[in-house]
Amino acid sequence: MAGNVILLAAISVLSACQQSYFAFQVGRARFKCKVIPPAVTGSLEFERVFRAQQNCVEFYPVFLITLWMAGWYFNQVFATCLGLVYIYSRHKYFWGYSEAAEKRISGFRLSLGTLGLLGVLGALGIANSFLDEYLDIHVAKQLRRYF
Amino acid sequence: MAGNVILLAAISVLSACQQSYFAFQVGRARFKCKVIPPAVTGSLEFERVFRAQQNCVEFYPVFLITLWMAGWYFNQVFATCLGLVYIYSRHKYFWGYSEAAEKRISGFRLSLGTLGLLGVLGALGIANSFLDEYLDIHVAKQLRRYF
Amino acid sequence: MAGNVILLAAISVLSACQQSYFAFQVGRARFKCKVIPPAVTGSLEFERVFRAQQNCVEFYPVFLITLWMAGWYFNQVFATCLGLVYIYSRHKYFWGYSEAAEKRISGFRLSLGTLGLLGVLGALGIANSFLDEYLDIHVAKQLRRYF
Repeated sequence: MAGNVILLAAISVLSACQQSYFAFQVGRARFKCKVIPPAVTGSLEFERVFRAQQNCVEFYPVFLITLWMAGWYFNQVFATCLGLVYIYSRHKYFWGYSEAAEKRISGFRLSLGTLGLLGVLGALGIANSFLDEYLDIHVAKQLRRYF
Repeated sequence: MAGNVILLAAISVLSACQQSYFAFQVGRARFKCKVIPPAVTGSLEFERVFRAQQNCVEFYPVFLITLWMAGWYFNQVFATCLGLVYIYSRHKYFWGYSEAAEKRISGFRLSLGTLGLLGVLGALGIANSFLDEYLDIHVAKQLRRYF
Repeated sequence: MAGNVILLAAISVLSACQQSYFAFQVGRARFKCKVIPPAVTGSLEFERVFRAQQNCVEFYPVFLITLWMAGWYFNQVFATCLGLVYIYSRHKYFWGYSEAAEKRISGFRLSLGTLGLLGVLGALGIANSFLDEYLDIHVAKQLRRYF
């Protein structure tokens, strides 16, 4: 088991590092803009960095779940590549949002697209496994015959 | 392994879709109430939708952990049913809160109850496995003898 | 599989209980300081409790991922001990922050240190498994020969 998900594990640890890095940047912005805890408002620059990180936090569990499900039930290498794209898109989103609110759009769209694709692949893989195991219908095998 | 958790996997992807849907609703409310990023205050209607989603985000990792632990160590089908109840309760909570702050209560209570039950089942299952494996005490088997 | 991760499972459920407890404390502080939903500002005492819980929420998925990866790929018992240290540090952080903003520092540093160590152990374990499986280089075995 543990060997078959090693790429997913590596991507997960990498994305966890990214999340910690974003949290660290919020701390730096707090210091730079002199926003004293527990306040989270008062400086527009800090608020942008903070909202960017909060948005990444919101989507992080969704990303992890879809990554692992797509990797488990569909294809690990493909899910890993999409995971890398997602990490890149979040990087772009975070730094874009930190500069100006409008610059967050392109990174955000890429991250949503990647997340949607991971979700669809995960759902397809799960549906295929379900049909295979419970209803004895082998969709993937039959498809492979034609290609 | 992957085959034994297929219902948990399906529920996880379903709940991930729900989380994304809530996030999408926040974006819509932001647009509708003209709350310009990075602000999150200014319109009571937007604030309600936003707080509803934030609360769902807070509890999402707790839900996933208790769902999988209850499904792994106790019973997959039972955990899946509770997972469906949780998703329904969050749906009720979100739309209730979006309308008025008082309407969030019933959905929230149901979600907490479901979460508590999942947690208790997970803890029982883990305790049983622990006794079984490390201390060689077979509680579940002995209970089954009486019923 | 399920038997080999039982300690990680127990720590996960324990930390999920802690997260729920923090959320409950926010509800209590809301009631005590008369902060009416959906507002999250207005009382400094409530804001401190709320920010403390929010910070725990932000780091929770990161903790879970590093805990499981360190436990899977490095050593379960060691990861479990670090998990307990993390739960203790969050307890200290939360109650410190609830009293005064300055009192959050020591608990926060301990939690970051534990998280960093879990992340490093997870990354080392994954790297070792990767070399072992894909490149046929047995680092761990060769190290063991010298000790």
